[in-house]
Amino acid sequence: MSAPKPVTAGIVVIGDEILSGRTRDINVQQIAEFLAPLGISLTEVRIISDHQPAIIEAVQALSARCDYVFTTGGLGPTHDDITADAIAAAFKRSIDVRDDAKAILEHWYANSDAAITPARMRMARIPEGAVLIDNPVTGAPGFQVENVFVLAGVPKIARGMLEDVADRLTRGAVTHSVSVRIDNAREGDMAAALGKLQSAHPTISIGSYPWFEDLGGGKLNRGVALVARGTDTSELAIVEMALERLGQSHRDA
Amino acid sequence: MSAPKPVTAGIVVIGDEILSGRTRDINVQQIAEFLAPLGISLTEVRIISDHQPAIIEAVQALSARCDYVFTTGGLGPTHDDITADAIAAAFKRSIDVRDDAKAILEHWYANSDAAITPARMRMARIPEGAVLIDNPVTGAPGFQVENVFVLAGVPKIARGMLEDVADRLTRGAVTHSVSVRIDNAREGDMAAALGKLQSAHPTISIGSYPWFEDLGGGKLNRGVALVARGTDTSELAIVEMALERLGQSHRDA
Repeated sequence: MSAPKPVTAGIVVIGDEILSGRTRDINVQQIAEFLAPLGISLTEVRIISDHQPAIIEAVQALSARCDYVFTTGGLGPTHDDITADAIAAAFKRSIDVRDDAKAILEHWYANSDAAITPARMRMARIPEGAVLIDNPVTGAPGFQVENVFVLAGVPKIARGMLEDVADRLTRGAVTHSVSVRIDNAREGDMAAALGKLQSAHPTISIGSYPWFEDLGGGKLNRGVALVARGTDTSELAIVEMALERLGQSHRDA
Repeated sequence: MSAPKPVTAGIVVIGDEILSGRTRDINVQQIAEFLAPLGISLTEVRIISDHQPAIIEAVQALSARCDYVFTTGGLGPTHDDITADAIAAAFKRSIDVRDDAKAILEHWYANSDAAITPARMRMARIPEGAVLIDNPVTGAPGFQVENVFVLAGVPKIARGMLEDVADRLTRGAVTHSVSVRIDNAREGDMAAALGKLQSAHPTISIGSYPWFEDLGGGKLNRGVALVARGTDTSELAIVEMALERLGQSHRDA
């Protein structure tokens, strides 16, 4: 009997601000960390500009190849918020202000010091047939169309929306990871042993990540992080012991 | 006469470690910030897993649609470093240990306390016809094939490699940006005015980015960052003044 597979997910970051370098994205890591314990593995991320054709292409591509897709950004009330219309276009659905979303906004703003402007009512534009996603921070909902979850870009709001959709996600086999940090080592010295270990444990994915710390005066502290990942915890424990032994023999060698 | 256009670039982050959430990528922002003053604008980023078919697909797609592509990651001596072979496959070129790369490694290790192992010699595997990229940190070179620059994943090394290739890049019109921060404001209140301003200045890209600070006790400080970007500095100055006026009228309104 084969073990259940991890469920896969993709992320589409709709983000001129990320591409310009002005803002560093933190949603990718936040979503990856949220999905991991659910047994859902991130397999691809695309960061694209705020243009409808780019959004349509990326969402269609990842929707076809991943079990789930999460988009972030472009759900607000301003002219540059074009995600809802782009998602409707990607799935060939109509889009208009929807009564359920409008009611949420009306209720939200009735309890705030802000008024519902026509601009804010844009945030009630939801593609036909979409399922709403609760926004506990600022009211305006996200939504789900087929396997695509459309989240706000503000990390705090995106996080709240993830909590709301967790129960809609089919869970898979959780990928566990172990890591061994080796100071004062070079990965070239352990590459042969690592390669053999990987060949002996094909269901475990073993990665080697060198790191460097600038100590000043042209001096460099360097080491390696060895990371093993897999769904089979007993196999992973065997690999972890082997990595520890490798670390012992190379640490400060 | 039309002004010169920005040159475009894409990034392919080859990164199981980023997708797992274990590591937060900083190369995207680093490369975007390096390219901006050269008049090269980042238009798409893909973060993909360490698998050859994924690398080939992403590199081919972005190489066809961007002026330049930068890849990060997968250039080291261990079994999980598969980028060089994947790039060769993407461009249907042969790959082998190349004398010029081998000479660089031999010279580098002759001046270090490490030996050239067969694993390290893998780092001299370079696709046929590729142009080498200097690595001032750890010796092993990156390389360029057509419009694709293959960089290491360690940010410090990637940075050094960017410096080496700067002179190979055609420069475009620099996209400048201005930003206005408005405390205690909501973007819904200024959306209509912003939309009009955007319509009046179609060559300038105006973005509105809400931000939230948790003050504790259920209290939220919120505001908006208005960002305008464009290549025409006089037009941009006009938009900046308009954004400042908008800020004045909504700040602490």
